[in-house]
Amino acid sequence: MTNQDSKLVPIGISARHIHLSQAHIDILFGEGYQLTVFKDLTQPGQYAANETVGVFGPKGGFEKVRILGPARKESQLEVAMTDTLKLGIQAPVRESGNIEGTPGVRVVGPKGEVEMDKGVIVAARHIHFHTSDAAKWGIADKQVLKVKLNGLRPLTFDDVIARVSDSFALDMHIDTDEGNAAGVKTGQMAEIIG
Amino acid sequence: MTNQDSKLVPIGISARHIHLSQAHIDILFGEGYQLTVFKDLTQPGQYAANETVGVFGPKGGFEKVRILGPARKESQLEVAMTDTLKLGIQAPVRESGNIEGTPGVRVVGPKGEVEMDKGVIVAARHIHFHTSDAAKWGIADKQVLKVKLNGLRPLTFDDVIARVSDSFALDMHIDTDEGNAAGVKTGQMAEIIG
Repeated sequence: MTNQDSKLVPIGISARHIHLSQAHIDILFGEGYQLTVFKDLTQPGQYAANETVGVFGPKGGFEKVRILGPARKESQLEVAMTDTLKLGIQAPVRESGNIEGTPGVRVVGPKGEVEMDKGVIVAARHIHFHTSDAAKWGIADKQVLKVKLNGLRPLTFDDVIARVSDSFALDMHIDTDEGNAAGVKTGQMAEIIG
Repeated sequence: MTNQDSKLVPIGISARHIHLSQAHIDILFGEGYQLTVFKDLTQPGQYAANETVGVFGPKGGFEKVRILGPARKESQLEVAMTDTLKLGIQAPVRESGNIEGTPGVRVVGPKGEVEMDKGVIVAARHIHFHTSDAAKWGIADKQVLKVKLNGLRPLTFDDVIARVSDSFALDMHIDTDEGNAAGVKTGQMAEIIG
């Protein structure tokens, strides 16, 4: 049931990806290296880079993991739970940036390697709201929302975290496991129902 | 919120697996070969076999896929959507046994190979009910149920199919993508809420 007052949000499915600090980019790609833009992302200023790295855990790894730019204060690898099996790493579900006490991973670039001592997470599902969207719908930063996805395999997520900022564009971020469980693709709409 | 009247069902997460016809077992393992029992499953008479096979699609495959016994009338490979990417096969969400028009896959055993011309599916989430469980809760075969999973990542599946038979034991079957999206493990309980 949708109507004009429905709180509809586009879905963005994040495949595994990595954010890197400039210090790590320097080691992996060479001193002072600047990432190059492959594709702009929905969130203003964020982009998928042309560059990829390998990431390897005790059990296995992935040869080509996309880097998302720009460089961040701390490196962070975001994977789906399915991926953690292949890596052999028990990554917790965390909000982006909250990486204290998380496991690390070995990262391999064309010019060098980095042993991250933390930063591997399964990103908690969340919705980015521009401040104006949040105000219109009466939604507060950090609020936990119930969101219905009416895809091929309908389901309702009961624990979607609202993130509100002037620098965000309206978008719901879920990982590939979640997208597959719902049978949805990027660009389809989800509805906030509570 | 649970109480004594709650309709609680144990969760079983199915990793990718294959059911084989005896004709295919004969080719893959040798004429008249009988599968051997590794572990009994929740459903009476069903078991995980010691034997595994390789399965390969146009893009890639899996070296060791567990066979579930006993032999069935038709071979059927059940995968998570995540797996379909690695295989390079677009498998539909189907109920077990409903394999007309589904894609095939190459199956490799120690004694031979089979090119299945159909049978690759993503299993539709479902609950097995013994007839007595279904009667007690007023649930009919094929009914579509709303089921809440209160795991690490709470969600509600809106489209869980009821399957009722005297030969079933109470168990909810979901795949690894679904288990990961919910943050649950086999043996945890789900609640039928509608």
